[in-house]
Amino acid sequence: MDMERLQKQFEFILEMDKEKQIMRRTHIHGYSRNESDAEHAWHMALMTMLLSEYSNEPIDVLHTIEMLIVHDLVEVDAGDTYAYDAKGNETKAAREQAAADRIYGLLPEDQGKRLRALWDEFEESKTPEAKFAHVMDNIQPMMLNAANDGKDWKSNSVCLEQILKRNEITPDGSHELWDFARENFINPHIEKGNILE
Amino acid sequence: MDMERLQKQFEFILEMDKEKQIMRRTHIHGYSRNESDAEHAWHMALMTMLLSEYSNEPIDVLHTIEMLIVHDLVEVDAGDTYAYDAKGNETKAAREQAAADRIYGLLPEDQGKRLRALWDEFEESKTPEAKFAHVMDNIQPMMLNAANDGKDWKSNSVCLEQILKRNEITPDGSHELWDFARENFINPHIEKGNILE
Repeated sequence: MDMERLQKQFEFILEMDKEKQIMRRTHIHGYSRNESDAEHAWHMALMTMLLSEYSNEPIDVLHTIEMLIVHDLVEVDAGDTYAYDAKGNETKAAREQAAADRIYGLLPEDQGKRLRALWDEFEESKTPEAKFAHVMDNIQPMMLNAANDGKDWKSNSVCLEQILKRNEITPDGSHELWDFARENFINPHIEKGNILE
Repeated sequence: MDMERLQKQFEFILEMDKEKQIMRRTHIHGYSRNESDAEHAWHMALMTMLLSEYSNEPIDVLHTIEMLIVHDLVEVDAGDTYAYDAKGNETKAAREQAAADRIYGLLPEDQGKRLRALWDEFEESKTPEAKFAHVMDNIQPMMLNAANDGKDWKSNSVCLEQILKRNEITPDGSHELWDFARENFINPHIEKGNILE
């Protein structure tokens, strides 16, 4: 057995424990606290297991889940950037590239490359798997915001235009899930005034 | 599109958000707080992506990750039973069976059956995938306990015999990972007196 390889793998695995301390703006159902990046990734993996049948194109479920499991690891260094934080999003790419260099560099070379390629694929959002992963990444917090009576939209003064811009690519992954989300999660909260028109 | 099916799927997905509120005895690295079931499952999925090469037998990685993603869902109703809580473990099976009936019953029938079969497979621990999933389930908290200077072992007065009994099946999934864990996570904490002999 290659002990150096296994040591590196466990050092990485322990270092990534920090993803549990990266807190998102989104609150868990009931609004008692924010959710962590790790919880968000787990929830999307579960969603992918159940909802992959609604992808516009056939997808490799393992590949999609692996992408979702790793897609926020860079935030261990770069922090979470809120979807509607315009200033934070200006510097996001540079912060996350530096984070990726360090974080994926902790792993044995073959695995570091493989995980970084998954993250790049997610960011580029061109493959059917990456498009579907973005559907999960956009709809999961939308579902929670709606279940929490729109409090996260309201407290951040989010307007419909911002949501639609962020979700420009969502129908590319799944028309059906986007239609469902629009009707069940967004529209009722426009009517209630929780999302600004 | 079958709207009733999609409604059921989202009801289940939102209900399972509760897994973020099931807190384990294990603390995250740094000991600032306990980890949630959802975080534990995410961490093991990441570990499986990186460590499957050490399985005694070849495993289907997707199948193993799916098992790990769902294996604690019953705790939403049944609660977390600490590995070394003898009394809680007496009633665990009955509590979890009742939970499984309700929880998997929320889903469309085909998916409810599929997820319950994954949980049953994990509990039976006979397939290569289930055996490897148990390696993850046992080694992940061991890694964190060791990184937290053995505090969780110490505060629960855990003795070596209990750890070895719980890990009886660990070498069936991976000799190599068990040897590594024994040497790197357990032995140093016997020497330090954090694990009672």
